[in-house]
Amino acid sequence: MTQEQGVKPIDSLQLAEPLASQLRFLLEADSLKSVIRGSRIADGSRRENTAEHSWHIALFALVLAPHAAERVDVLRVVSMLLIHDLVEIDCGDTPLFDAAGTATQAAREVIAARRLFGMLPAKQATEILALWHEFEAAATADARFAKAIDRLQPILLNHAVGGGTWTDYDVDEARERALTCRIADGSPGLWGVAEAVINDAVCRGWLKPAPGT
Amino acid sequence: MTQEQGVKPIDSLQLAEPLASQLRFLLEADSLKSVIRGSRIADGSRRENTAEHSWHIALFALVLAPHAAERVDVLRVVSMLLIHDLVEIDCGDTPLFDAAGTATQAAREVIAARRLFGMLPAKQATEILALWHEFEAAATADARFAKAIDRLQPILLNHAVGGGTWTDYDVDEARERALTCRIADGSPGLWGVAEAVINDAVCRGWLKPAPGT
Repeated sequence: MTQEQGVKPIDSLQLAEPLASQLRFLLEADSLKSVIRGSRIADGSRRENTAEHSWHIALFALVLAPHAAERVDVLRVVSMLLIHDLVEIDCGDTPLFDAAGTATQAAREVIAARRLFGMLPAKQATEILALWHEFEAAATADARFAKAIDRLQPILLNHAVGGGTWTDYDVDEARERALTCRIADGSPGLWGVAEAVINDAVCRGWLKPAPGT
Repeated sequence: MTQEQGVKPIDSLQLAEPLASQLRFLLEADSLKSVIRGSRIADGSRRENTAEHSWHIALFALVLAPHAAERVDVLRVVSMLLIHDLVEIDCGDTPLFDAAGTATQAAREVIAARRLFGMLPAKQATEILALWHEFEAAATADARFAKAIDRLQPILLNHAVGGGTWTDYDVDEARERALTCRIADGSPGLWGVAEAVINDAVCRGWLKPAPGT
């Protein structure tokens, strides 16, 4: 049986609401598995996709929650981390070191968030869109800790593979610190880890020293 | 600088406990991105890996929690789904339709769970191992709902790609129903979805009819 253009098999099932909308959203979300990031997986064999990155940082949050700067609601933190990158289905990944991309990133991602979360039933769409905005604004303890986790994981992967996106984007230690130092807002303990990793990467020649040092 | 055999860059940092153990565990977990499942991603372009599968089902749980048969603790459900397949780092994926593999699966996976979760600080290792056993036993409402989600997602992916593992393993409708009907224990509503999908797949020729029908 052929499919009409753009009509997916799930659309033909005539499921009742709210399940029909929820399942269409969850199948649309599958596309995040095809969004490729700059970071490599830890064995260096290939680049990471955003779906597996999202799993990894959710696991980070579960394990590292005791290191949050303030008391956090772990379910809210994990939920933010599971949903925050879904906008990349429409916008692609914007590497931290891509200045041109990051300049327009927020505006592009707001449009994507409205489209994607808008596929859900209205109440759930509103709740998840609010959670996405909360993460982006980093104005709560939960969001600051979630952001810290999201910034720490790529540092560990670059260290595991001996350079990674630091090499790709010719990043030096000062720029790396400037782009990641807000990890300390979510967790001073995890910022301590990031500093140890950055220092070690400079010593090993995987990250350029700051200019003039 | 060369690395000693088996010594990873993270090991050289001499981080304090419990962070050192937690980060070694989280980098070991990265290997789940290289475990390949039978299911294809929804566009049919490649097989799914277990890390991105784990992300997908955690997102399913967040969105579909209102359909659980009994009141569930969403954080516990999501946590189970994020950690339950980590044993595949040592054991590989065992497809539902692989009778020989499933016969030895439980024994193999218990050993893997002890090794992997045993990398964590003792209290956290005990808690996460208990959560893993709870999922496996499916003896609580949280675990039954988590299991239902884990069974539903591959059905939707097989339907999205027009056969998938149903074709690979020459599965018929009766076998598929027998292997997935416990979805109803976690969520009668989601079992209704599974039945609609299975019926449609038989109609379209993507899943063989039950013998004698």
